[in-house]
Amino acid sequence: MEQNKRRIRLKVAYDGTNYCGWQLQPNGNTVQAELEKALESLLKEKVRIHGASRTDAGVHALGNVAVFDTSFRMEASRFAFALNTYLPPDIRIRCSDEVPCDWHPRFQEMVKTYAYNICNSTFPDPLKRLYSFFYHYPLNESAMQEAASFLVGTHDFTSFCTMQPNVHDRVRTIYSMDVIRDGDMITIRVTGNGFLYNMVRIIAVTLIRVGGGFIKPEEVRTILEAKDREAAAETARPEGLTLEEIRYV
Amino acid sequence: MEQNKRRIRLKVAYDGTNYCGWQLQPNGNTVQAELEKALESLLKEKVRIHGASRTDAGVHALGNVAVFDTSFRMEASRFAFALNTYLPPDIRIRCSDEVPCDWHPRFQEMVKTYAYNICNSTFPDPLKRLYSFFYHYPLNESAMQEAASFLVGTHDFTSFCTMQPNVHDRVRTIYSMDVIRDGDMITIRVTGNGFLYNMVRIIAVTLIRVGGGFIKPEEVRTILEAKDREAAAETARPEGLTLEEIRYV
Repeated sequence: MEQNKRRIRLKVAYDGTNYCGWQLQPNGNTVQAELEKALESLLKEKVRIHGASRTDAGVHALGNVAVFDTSFRMEASRFAFALNTYLPPDIRIRCSDEVPCDWHPRFQEMVKTYAYNICNSTFPDPLKRLYSFFYHYPLNESAMQEAASFLVGTHDFTSFCTMQPNVHDRVRTIYSMDVIRDGDMITIRVTGNGFLYNMVRIIAVTLIRVGGGFIKPEEVRTILEAKDREAAAETARPEGLTLEEIRYV
Repeated sequence: MEQNKRRIRLKVAYDGTNYCGWQLQPNGNTVQAELEKALESLLKEKVRIHGASRTDAGVHALGNVAVFDTSFRMEASRFAFALNTYLPPDIRIRCSDEVPCDWHPRFQEMVKTYAYNICNSTFPDPLKRLYSFFYHYPLNESAMQEAASFLVGTHDFTSFCTMQPNVHDRVRTIYSMDVIRDGDMITIRVTGNGFLYNMVRIIAVTLIRVGGGFIKPEEVRTILEAKDREAAAETARPEGLTLEEIRYV
């Protein structure tokens, strides 16, 4: 790296509705592509950004983290304001700071928090449709919370992930999982040291099956112990999912 | 009206983001146009609908009301489900019933409730941008509530409306106006027997000026008594406004 280059870290929020996810794609617009375009407009040079979480198409974020290197002379905290003037309104930089040049947002110890929102109503509210999964039948959030408690702790989450050929260690630690109802909206909020591919969305559908009475809360333990993707439910729709926070520890 | 025609009433919710308001327009798509298109698909005939509230471009609704006449044979409550299969996901019929053939949604005694949402945060949350007005500087919701109390009751609201040549009686009754903060979100919820053009949005900006300390709560009384549109603030942006409910009394 050139002597005068600094590494700038961004905390990024976005509405994932109109994006094919975070990561650059040959077809379709992505959050990373929009960020790199805004950076090029600001810095007058092409830069590559590296994100902490490559969220899927339609998934939202309030606190994804990304870094880029630049020799552009600007106070680190000002990059947030400057970039927001070039970004579309569905992507906002919450803040920016400087980190050591060897700091990488994916290769650090971290605690991630995701929220999965379920609009549990007889009526699909059009004002909530982009940020929650609509589920018509009554859900028992106490049963969902009981089921969630079996997943807290350090476990092999093979039953709750979409297999990826290069991911062999499927042990992760979930620190907390809370199921909270506020009127028609049920939020599953889960905090952990890392998540496998589709893990939160597979957990969400499994808890919805518990809440709807299709399986008993304690069956979630059996599914977990099976270490078999076939044992759990399908993957929940992306619009319900928001990456709320990444905390580096 | 033909002997066998019935009048069907719809309770309509919509995300106004992508519409040029409720009412049919020569240019641009409207909620009424979408509803009439869905009705034509269902009934195989052109029908005209009549709405209770002609909301402006970008304004949302959870409970607008509309009627149409048809001889189509279907249980009145089933129209809601049938129409939803033809409507885009940003418009939903909440329920349908039959009303007398001379019942018109605009010419009845009614109580309307509007909510104006303000995202009062240092950071413009992209997940809230479509359904709230973003206001960066701190707002004092207690001062806003105090100001709101001066508007409750029966008053001439000339200061708080955009003039319309055919509207001469500008006396309306506000039954309640509550300013509620939930984290970053401040909601002004107002219930009354009728509202003048842009009245809620003009009240909203006036209360924001109070909340920001630019005018004192009691100055709202002076503005009201002036009966002069120039006395009040401008009109707040439409995305913060939702027509929540119309109750016929």
